[in-house]
Amino acid sequence: MRAAIVGATGYGGIELIRLLHNHPEIESMTVFSSSQEGKQMAESFPHVTGIVELTLEDIDAKKLKQHDVVFLSTPPGVSAELSTKLNGQTRIIDLSGDLRLKHADTYRSWYKRESAPDTLLQEAVYGLTEWHREEVTAAVLLSNPGCYATTVLSGILPLIKEEAADAGSLIIDAKSGTTGAGRSPSAMTHFSEMNDNLKIYKVNEHKHTPEIEQELARFSKKEEPVTFSPHLVPMTRGIMATMYVPLARGWNREDLEELFEQCYRDSPFIRIRKDGALPFTKEVYGTNYCDIGFTVDERTGRATIVSVTDNLMKGASGQAVQNMNLMFGLPETSGLDYIPMYP
Amino acid sequence: MRAAIVGATGYGGIELIRLLHNHPEIESMTVFSSSQEGKQMAESFPHVTGIVELTLEDIDAKKLKQHDVVFLSTPPGVSAELSTKLNGQTRIIDLSGDLRLKHADTYRSWYKRESAPDTLLQEAVYGLTEWHREEVTAAVLLSNPGCYATTVLSGILPLIKEEAADAGSLIIDAKSGTTGAGRSPSAMTHFSEMNDNLKIYKVNEHKHTPEIEQELARFSKKEEPVTFSPHLVPMTRGIMATMYVPLARGWNREDLEELFEQCYRDSPFIRIRKDGALPFTKEVYGTNYCDIGFTVDERTGRATIVSVTDNLMKGASGQAVQNMNLMFGLPETSGLDYIPMYP
Amino acid sequence: MRAAIVGATGYGGIELIRLLHNHPEIESMTVFSSSQEGKQMAESFPHVTGIVELTLEDIDAKKLKQHDVVFLSTPPGVSAELSTKLNGQTRIIDLSGDLRLKHADTYRSWYKRESAPDTLLQEAVYGLTEWHREEVTAAVLLSNPGCYATTVLSGILPLIKEEAADAGSLIIDAKSGTTGAGRSPSAMTHFSEMNDNLKIYKVNEHKHTPEIEQELARFSKKEEPVTFSPHLVPMTRGIMATMYVPLARGWNREDLEELFEQCYRDSPFIRIRKDGALPFTKEVYGTNYCDIGFTVDERTGRATIVSVTDNLMKGASGQAVQNMNLMFGLPETSGLDYIPMYP
Amino acid sequence: MRAAIVGATGYGGIELIRLLHNHPEIESMTVFSSSQEGKQMAESFPHVTGIVELTLEDIDAKKLKQHDVVFLSTPPGVSAELSTKLNGQTRIIDLSGDLRLKHADTYRSWYKRESAPDTLLQEAVYGLTEWHREEVTAAVLLSNPGCYATTVLSGILPLIKEEAADAGSLIIDAKSGTTGAGRSPSAMTHFSEMNDNLKIYKVNEHKHTPEIEQELARFSKKEEPVTFSPHLVPMTRGIMATMYVPLARGWNREDLEELFEQCYRDSPFIRIRKDGALPFTKEVYGTNYCDIGFTVDERTGRATIVSVTDNLMKGASGQAVQNMNLMFGLPETSGLDYIPMYP
Repeated sequence: MRAAIVGATGYGGIELIRLLHNHPEIESMTVFSSSQEGKQMAESFPHVTGIVELTLEDIDAKKLKQHDVVFLSTPPGVSAELSTKLNGQTRIIDLSGDLRLKHADTYRSWYKRESAPDTLLQEAVYGLTEWHREEVTAAVLLSNPGCYATTVLSGILPLIKEEAADAGSLIIDAKSGTTGAGRSPSAMTHFSEMNDNLKIYKVNEHKHTPEIEQELARFSKKEEPVTFSPHLVPMTRGIMATMYVPLARGWNREDLEELFEQCYRDSPFIRIRKDGALPFTKEVYGTNYCDIGFTVDERTGRATIVSVTDNLMKGASGQAVQNMNLMFGLPETSGLDYIPMYP
Repeated sequence: MRAAIVGATGYGGIELIRLLHNHPEIESMTVFSSSQEGKQMAESFPHVTGIVELTLEDIDAKKLKQHDVVFLSTPPGVSAELSTKLNGQTRIIDLSGDLRLKHADTYRSWYKRESAPDTLLQEAVYGLTEWHREEVTAAVLLSNPGCYATTVLSGILPLIKEEAADAGSLIIDAKSGTTGAGRSPSAMTHFSEMNDNLKIYKVNEHKHTPEIEQELARFSKKEEPVTFSPHLVPMTRGIMATMYVPLARGWNREDLEELFEQCYRDSPFIRIRKDGALPFTKEVYGTNYCDIGFTVDERTGRATIVSVTDNLMKGASGQAVQNMNLMFGLPETSGLDYIPMYP
Repeated sequence: MRAAIVGATGYGGIELIRLLHNHPEIESMTVFSSSQEGKQMAESFPHVTGIVELTLEDIDAKKLKQHDVVFLSTPPGVSAELSTKLNGQTRIIDLSGDLRLKHADTYRSWYKRESAPDTLLQEAVYGLTEWHREEVTAAVLLSNPGCYATTVLSGILPLIKEEAADAGSLIIDAKSGTTGAGRSPSAMTHFSEMNDNLKIYKVNEHKHTPEIEQELARFSKKEEPVTFSPHLVPMTRGIMATMYVPLARGWNREDLEELFEQCYRDSPFIRIRKDGALPFTKEVYGTNYCDIGFTVDERTGRATIVSVTDNLMKGASGQAVQNMNLMFGLPETSGLDYIPMYP
Repeated sequence: MRAAIVGATGYGGIELIRLLHNHPEIESMTVFSSSQEGKQMAESFPHVTGIVELTLEDIDAKKLKQHDVVFLSTPPGVSAELSTKLNGQTRIIDLSGDLRLKHADTYRSWYKRESAPDTLLQEAVYGLTEWHREEVTAAVLLSNPGCYATTVLSGILPLIKEEAADAGSLIIDAKSGTTGAGRSPSAMTHFSEMNDNLKIYKVNEHKHTPEIEQELARFSKKEEPVTFSPHLVPMTRGIMATMYVPLARGWNREDLEELFEQCYRDSPFIRIRKDGALPFTKEVYGTNYCDIGFTVDERTGRATIVSVTDNLMKGASGQAVQNMNLMFGLPETSGLDYIPMYP
């Protein structure tokens, strides 16, 4: 298989290179960048010196079509444009938010820009792998979920689907490492300002909010707004979503455990914690795992669900490769069988 | 004034020394320790070399009584014992949890040990300064609040008191730096395990839970259980409590702003953020401030309230000194007028 | 006294505000900025909300002259220009590198720009306080030393002056926190790139190199080149300079200890460690101390000297205030009597 | 191949498990521990849940012999004892310091304990792979080098061997992440004490000093003492050794570059940086690479050589697997072809 990576100099792109370089079915990669064409990867990224000997190429639709799969790790708008040009001529996995929302209006109001054409929005398969395996397997145009959305939905969808909880009562307190904010330097992520500090931002205004609401609505009776607070933690990788819901009558901890076990029985990347042992972000570092733990408080009747991922892996490039595997009939774990880096 | 610090080698004790050393009304300090008596402070703490020339003394009730104020920065049980011995013979400020809960039963069930005598529990004034100024001013035996409790209550009490929200619906997602876990090395706070990691622990089982519930009940109609999840963040100091409540009918953001401004008008250490600008932990670093911000989501009708403190200052030793100031008729800010360390 | 701070929005400027706000002899401060005039300090720096109620003003020589002391915390070139305009009309303390080098040629070759006028270079007093107290006391135009230079010179000058070591054999391995690189976001200091990482940069090319060499030459027989490697450590504040020199014949550890004790007997901010106990950066955090330790290896005849400072304090704004104190006949420690923040 | 890991619950052991689990030639692993026998790996290490399903076994020589290779990741003394028992009956790779020094006296004086039997010391092959490939290939008893020693020797041996520099003039300033200090909690590596801090320790007293001196002596004319200062940096993994030597007459930067290129031409894990671009620790994170850069200062005639490794990989378990590969006739890079984790 020949893979193209567009936007190879961002954190999502460089993580794709790490994964695809060792993927058993990838024969060759081509890397594209709008800003650094002509440069050797190792010039910008000394860590790949002597390993990845690729030159960044100018983004060009004709060249892209010659690949079996094209990963778009590009900014909003650029993905929409490239998807429109390439759709149907090669398989596309888009890591941006451009194709995640089904309603153009919702896109416009949260992203503050024009959306991709409606036909594209309808055609794109939302690649939360564990919940859409069949569609992903058949997909030609795949929209890879957001990092927060992946972490949140993996932890809460089982309850919503089985009516153990109501989407409208969901409160999500999410914490992310700084790579989620990308590779462009900013005051927010300047080391001197972020080290030994804890930040909160875009409360109820983050773009992943409508994505979460849309996907919850697929499994609940109606679309309802959720409460979503993202935080920035002084660490490089990792997301933890701590979620709060009142449990429906009759549900207890054992029921939840059984529900999760059943739901994810055939999902190699979802690990359910036993006995209230809650996961830490470092326990999935560098891998495609999503670890989920939970407790039920009998005093309040509320469940607290904790879901962790590596935001660059299951939250981005890892899940993209997982989706690619399904789209090409490969084993789901192909090229993703890493043990978390510890410590 | 002569001050005694018992448990001077813990983080609470050493922070008291930092504050009292420069306090205009403190003439002398004596430092006590059960494990390091006879040692010079500078031997264990090179950072005070040439500044604090004190020798650690063995804990002795007779010597303690000779001080105008005794700070107990001692483990559970030890505080109860010393308070019992010293009560009425000097002013006591207890930084442990031994005197915070009014009901011995509650203490026993959350602390898993025998409580202090009931008379002591009744007599001790709960030193959340802004909410009990008169009692604090008159106090002889003061129980200094927990770091989480201080941060949480400062942010939510105004709403509870004015019935803008219901205590029973409160969800608290709290995040702390590691000094909250004390100075004893442990696997949990080993640098290699904590760095670049985010942990969650004691969900709905933390000892500050009943303390929060008890204090909420003073201002609401009845005692109700809350949901409380503490997290450990890879930073040294700082607590952020992100709190979620449905707003009572008729309340909006402007109302909340007015409520907070009014409530804390005469409180020099509480700073209310305008316009939804939410506080970061570093913005109170090394000081006694508690900064509070909030947003209201019209879609869900929920308010998100964010309260930050330095856990060793307003969350412990800073508030202890603030209380001492009131107990001795000094200006509330005496010896506490620091600007946060930035960055 | 009325103080003006030019460049009040950089880390050096904001640290000056922290110090001067609580300085007993400073009656008022005025803050100047070329980029943010008209803004309230608290808008850019929420940590000073309710404490520092100043509006940033446009840089204007006439206004500056109306102050008793003007601190220039401005970029290279700007300081030279403002010093030229203001010289003789008020006392100036320049925190930039513009007036540190006595030879215009050296400035040009290391700073790659035109130097300040030669008369200014000659007139400016180099404010390494402990080594130039008399000149500082009489100074009208003061050049505040670089952070690396301060840390290095404080640790090595005693040996050079007493011929215990030869400047030409000096090897300096220096490590700094990221605030030394300033407040402008960059790839080098982007949190995701700097966290959990250790960097080395500008080996033998850093601008503090000629400054160190010039000052060593004042106390040795001739100007000799040194080896100087700066590193960037994932921490906010602090510099450690680890220095290596062969000891002259006849010198041993005890001699060194006596030398240091004697040399800094009357220097309240220099603390000499006993018994080979070497200092850590956090032990001077937030203060004007420079802590110095050393060991002598009998096998090699070399001394290892370790000097630590807080780069924003003794390495910049703290020493600037220390110099101001002398220039105005105040006690050297005035407004600087903080205990290091621990931990 | 069947591999045994003794001391599987330390950082070296757990890293071996990460590597061997995915190694193409390892059929099975058995894990041994003196303190946690009977426990599932995933109980102590949630990050391997669902991946490594092994139970810790009691250390037993008979069981150990049934493996093709035994890794000893055990404390000083224990390794010596186990090596003595097992020698000749299976292949041993010892990650402790017990077999690194050839002279029992030197061991005793630096390790402050009795050494392994002299015959064992003589027989053990020192596994700095690139410098002893033939011996390693033939080894039955292999002593894996220390993390500092590996990083230092890889960077300096080329110069010593070719007489471009003299071992006696070598000054080594080394900086390590905290995992080098092991998994046992201590005040030194307590998060609250280590975060935002930089420490120096055991100057000229670290156990890797005689190891470095011994190995330098193999390639120089005589054994000479070196100056070696280890530092502890607030990061999890990584070592940087910054080394200073006067260059012998006639040598310049180009010569050095050629020397390094030549020397390591056939060494897949050593990467030489061009043009003075110096390596950062994160650029080898999680991999077996050792990256080396250098500059020559014409003013002083000194070379500064910078060598970085991941202390748990090339500095310990990675090099152990590299050595295992050679000992069993496998490709040197087998099971080690990871791309550094970035960022």
